[in-house]
Amino acid sequence: MSIHHLQHEALHRAWNRDLPPVLTVDPGDTVVFSTIDAADGKIPAPTWAAGPPNSSAWGVHPLEVESGHPICGPVAIRGAEPGDTLVVEVLEIVPNSWGWTAIGDHGVLGTEFAERALVYWDLRSGEVAVPWAPEGEPVMAARVPMLPFCGVMGVAPAEPGEQSTIPPRTVGGNMDVRFLTTGSTLLLPVAVEQALFSVGDVHAAQGDGEVSGTGIECHATVTLRFDLRRGRQLAQPEFYTPRRIIQGPCYGTSGVSPDLMEATRQAVWQMIAYLTTEHGFRATDAYLLCSAAVDLTVSEVVDGPNWIVSALLPLRVLST
Amino acid sequence: MSIHHLQHEALHRAWNRDLPPVLTVDPGDTVVFSTIDAADGKIPAPTWAAGPPNSSAWGVHPLEVESGHPICGPVAIRGAEPGDTLVVEVLEIVPNSWGWTAIGDHGVLGTEFAERALVYWDLRSGEVAVPWAPEGEPVMAARVPMLPFCGVMGVAPAEPGEQSTIPPRTVGGNMDVRFLTTGSTLLLPVAVEQALFSVGDVHAAQGDGEVSGTGIECHATVTLRFDLRRGRQLAQPEFYTPRRIIQGPCYGTSGVSPDLMEATRQAVWQMIAYLTTEHGFRATDAYLLCSAAVDLTVSEVVDGPNWIVSALLPLRVLST
Repeated sequence: MSIHHLQHEALHRAWNRDLPPVLTVDPGDTVVFSTIDAADGKIPAPTWAAGPPNSSAWGVHPLEVESGHPICGPVAIRGAEPGDTLVVEVLEIVPNSWGWTAIGDHGVLGTEFAERALVYWDLRSGEVAVPWAPEGEPVMAARVPMLPFCGVMGVAPAEPGEQSTIPPRTVGGNMDVRFLTTGSTLLLPVAVEQALFSVGDVHAAQGDGEVSGTGIECHATVTLRFDLRRGRQLAQPEFYTPRRIIQGPCYGTSGVSPDLMEATRQAVWQMIAYLTTEHGFRATDAYLLCSAAVDLTVSEVVDGPNWIVSALLPLRVLST
Repeated sequence: MSIHHLQHEALHRAWNRDLPPVLTVDPGDTVVFSTIDAADGKIPAPTWAAGPPNSSAWGVHPLEVESGHPICGPVAIRGAEPGDTLVVEVLEIVPNSWGWTAIGDHGVLGTEFAERALVYWDLRSGEVAVPWAPEGEPVMAARVPMLPFCGVMGVAPAEPGEQSTIPPRTVGGNMDVRFLTTGSTLLLPVAVEQALFSVGDVHAAQGDGEVSGTGIECHATVTLRFDLRRGRQLAQPEFYTPRRIIQGPCYGTSGVSPDLMEATRQAVWQMIAYLTTEHGFRATDAYLLCSAAVDLTVSEVVDGPNWIVSALLPLRVLST
């Protein structure tokens, strides 16, 4: 039941079953990870007195994750074998004092949404993310409750060689499941000897879907406890979450289409239209806010040939 | 600001822009609808003393909605024109005292899930749906909080001729959006003169996705208020909902796939495996419970090539 610490020196940027572990722990042990953001620290840090960097960095940023997420690990779990289930308890996630959200080409609207943008968020309250621009720049009228989780938690895949961190896998990875907050437990199918777990890409908050391609990305300190379960074999990740997020009143848009991805895109386009038309948002701010705070739900997949995906905006996000 | 009443004589079973209205109302008027269930009343009613019909009806039922949902209307809204938005306020939904959920071929698992089944629910408390079988029959150990909504609310489509009630349309219809509970407001794009609104298919509860093909289907009394908005033109339905449903702790399964529908199916299969393996459910009960109480969310659609759909089971459903 030891407590271990891993700092930035343990970062790697691809899954690889042959990567030597930076730490070996016993089931029951706890590890405190120091994680950095998905942009590998390339987004300029703000200065508290002067605020975030100037508008050229703030307004348009060509950022894409190119070389893979920096993830902390791999941690070997002694005795883990393929067919076991790795149990990861999320004991604590403490974001750094600032975060960012960008519109990338990999957003669900792709290049149909032509503009690119980046916003900073002030996370110092620890409770709510506040949009934050250099003095004189407009900021969107929105506040997003902080519910931090790790975008990436996973074990090494069975396939040999370097594997991209971008797509999630049946062994976890870049899952972006926003329910994996403090108090949750993630179950991952072990694919290689000693599991080889890594973590990173903390989001201070995110809407289901992460539609613009990024949540509220940040550096963080993450405390996880590991255990092994030898019984039931999992095909994919499962999890326990201590609570559904309580959102109060919401505004919704429903995408109707025979294709779930098209229904998703339509719901997002329509939410952007709602925010720009009814609340005076710039389109870029609306898209970013969707990624940070709007949830996508599958309303029905049984009334063929048309399915519905609804996007839900918690209205308290607009009470600034 | 009149109040009107529509009984069962106003039922029709297809959308049709040329169907004469059974009632014409002014903007601001309220209508109390008497709706019957999606099976058009063909599911045998229980008797309170004797309980639901015997196990042959209860265990396996070949039900499919064949001839379209019975929907109440059409109601003409005086002055509505194509390009307007019909505003529908949901003032009250009172389900009948019993409901049912079935596994049909049109469930999201299709015929891969081979068994067919039907369960009755006792809705008399008005608060929670309790599975209900003839004496001596096993019932699943689950309770589902009631949050009734209308599965079908829509206006006549622009296309001439009879149109099926099964698929939802950009003018609404069989949306099965479970957020449209009492206190919500639905906005629908008007496609024909006088809008021609109809309603039906009340569900006492349903999970996002309605995965086995039915929610907790019931007869009901539905009170709606109508208004018109001439400003913003909608491409698809939008809505306001007074609250996100508060679920407390949940268990989740994550489907990982390059196809959202396949990710959805995987998440549902895995939730069925969880309920059967960890909680001793029969597979049919597990699938039915998924349809009645498990929510599908789009966790991410930006970490290509793999997307994630997560299924969330509120654990309080299992506290019987």
